[in-house]
Amino acid sequence: TVSQDIDHILETQSALAVDLGGTNLRVAIISQQGEILHKMSELTPVTYEQRMDLLVRMLVEATSKAVELSCRILGIGISTGGRVNPHEGMVLHSTKILEEWSSIDLRTPISSKLHLPVWVDNDGNCAALGEKKFGKGKGSEDFITLIVGTGIGGGIVLNNELVHGANFCAAELGHISVSMDGPDCMCGSSGCVESYSSGIALQREAKKLHDADELLVPGVHLREGEEVTGKHVIQAAQLGNKKAEKVVETACEALGLAVCSLLHTVNPSHIILCGHLAPHYVDGVREVIQRRALPSAASSIQIMVSDLEEPALLGAASIVLEYATRRIY
Amino acid sequence: TVSQDIDHILETQSALAVDLGGTNLRVAIISQQGEILHKMSELTPVTYEQRMDLLVRMLVEATSKAVELSCRILGIGISTGGRVNPHEGMVLHSTKILEEWSSIDLRTPISSKLHLPVWVDNDGNCAALGEKKFGKGKGSEDFITLIVGTGIGGGIVLNNELVHGANFCAAELGHISVSMDGPDCMCGSSGCVESYSSGIALQREAKKLHDADELLVPGVHLREGEEVTGKHVIQAAQLGNKKAEKVVETACEALGLAVCSLLHTVNPSHIILCGHLAPHYVDGVREVIQRRALPSAASSIQIMVSDLEEPALLGAASIVLEYATRRIY
Ligand SMILES: [Ca+2]
Ligand SMILES: [Ca+2]
Ligand SMILES: [Zn+2]
Ligand SMILES: [Zn+2]
Repeated sequence: TVSQDIDHILETQSALAVDLGGTNLRVAIISQQGEILHKMSELTPVTYEQRMDLLVRMLVEATSKAVELSCRILGIGISTGGRVNPHEGMVLHSTKILEEWSSIDLRTPISSKLHLPVWVDNDGNCAALGEKKFGKGKGSEDFITLIVGTGIGGGIVLNNELVHGANFCAAELGHISVSMDGPDCMCGSSGCVESYSSGIALQREAKKLHDADELLVPGVHLREGEEVTGKHVIQAAQLGNKKAEKVVETACEALGLAVCSLLHTVNPSHIILCGHLAPHYVDGVREVIQRRALPSAASSIQIMVSDLEEPALLGAASIVLEYATRRIY
Repeated sequence: TVSQDIDHILETQSALAVDLGGTNLRVAIISQQGEILHKMSELTPVTYEQRMDLLVRMLVEATSKAVELSCRILGIGISTGGRVNPHEGMVLHSTKILEEWSSIDLRTPISSKLHLPVWVDNDGNCAALGEKKFGKGKGSEDFITLIVGTGIGGGIVLNNELVHGANFCAAELGHISVSMDGPDCMCGSSGCVESYSSGIALQREAKKLHDADELLVPGVHLREGEEVTGKHVIQAAQLGNKKAEKVVETACEALGLAVCSLLHTVNPSHIILCGHLAPHYVDGVREVIQRRALPSAASSIQIMVSDLEEPALLGAASIVLEYATRRIY
């Protein structure tokens, strides 16, 4: 029919984007313009086999959906937790947030099952790429993204390029130290900013308060069987619970100090906070910088909150879209 | 005479190099090959006027000496404490280690009095340039120098270039945070690595121990009127003074944590420790990295001690020599 012919001509050049985190495994179809045309989400399975099986199934399903939506898929971009060698599409090593996720070749099995080119980078680096192409990093040569979610990750763009480092450990910003002792971190060390300011850290403190009957105040409710999370300690702090306030203040101070260390190391023109905790931290981080950073660093740094719904997914897509564009033109 | 003619032909292309620190002001004549042909040292005057007067006098004296030595001086390279805008030859801001040393134009007055081109960068950055041209950074694209002396400074080379940062605050590595509280730092913050591991920090702890009569042990002597310094606490630790050992251990842990943060931010291929305290810290830093850094970062990082006598002076000279070479050829 005529309509089908037009659909064919109007095919949207798109990418399949994957975001594999400690909690959720998501797959999306994303257009050249950064529209998320379709999105699927599942809980991340705990074993390597289940995780790979589910990922392949979701990708196969997404390719069918792409046909329905008249999207031409140029490739697959994967954002994952852990240290990644992007040249080889390998996950080198992950902390306990992702078990059974070290020395994993993601490119070969997925590329051979889906018959599409596959690119991989870690979640923090993908978020930086997402900001660069579609968000507040547009037009900026030097910026850092800091994702504050379940864990803490980051990406550093210098001279328009991601900094990967000699062993692909650059921008593992969750493991910047802010304390010589401090709480145990998922990486095996202690006192990393992730052990103070991540969702997992806030949840740990929320549980401690709840166990001591010191979390709930009027306005903060736990439904029957609901798990205590970082959200509850933030709510309680907002409603005047002093102990919860102290937890959030310490988390802000830790994140602010990590940002100070970044200013005194890389000194980017701006820092983009992403992740669901970012809005709760941004004012605190700004205050810590004014109080503790060198005046030359504090005077003109811009601390922003991302306005992208899905920076890591968009960044994973952008690797595919950038590469495909370069190859074609 | 014949000998004078030969001298003239054999003139050595050289730079005047300045190293302006909190303690000493040094001027040297340095050849294209990195030989220090002549060196002068004075205590750094405390006021701006005295400092500039002495610097100009030393430079004038050095130019006379250069004539004697048949050196052709191509320019002046200045390594100084503080944040520096190298494009404008300005010191933007210094901590209390150098008073009256903020918003200082070094290039204009010195260039107009000496009739030579002047380049300026900070001591940490100059040390990195010195290592790159003459030391353990030769042939390396990505490395970090960390100077541990009276204060702590650093320089970051990525893709063969110094990272200066958006506000010339990059590589102010002494102000990486390693503690949320911790001792007061010269920068106005607290818990910076400089407040634990610098010469000033060790001296502060040495004085505390001495005031409590807990510093001196057999083998550690103070001459009549001699000031207690960091050297004494290191000696005491080596001779089994447990309290002194604790001070040095804490200093090592702090420096090691700062290095871990660098590995998780920039992840260079190696780190070169310079400054008179470097040999006392290198083993401790390596141990902290093995214990606390992410395995991918810890596995192949090389921590080295500089074998240059004067990395900052050599780096200051290298700016002159590199620029002159580029201009001529
Ligand atoms: Ca990263
Ligand atoms: Ca520096
Ligand atoms: Zn950690
Ligand atoms: Zn400081």
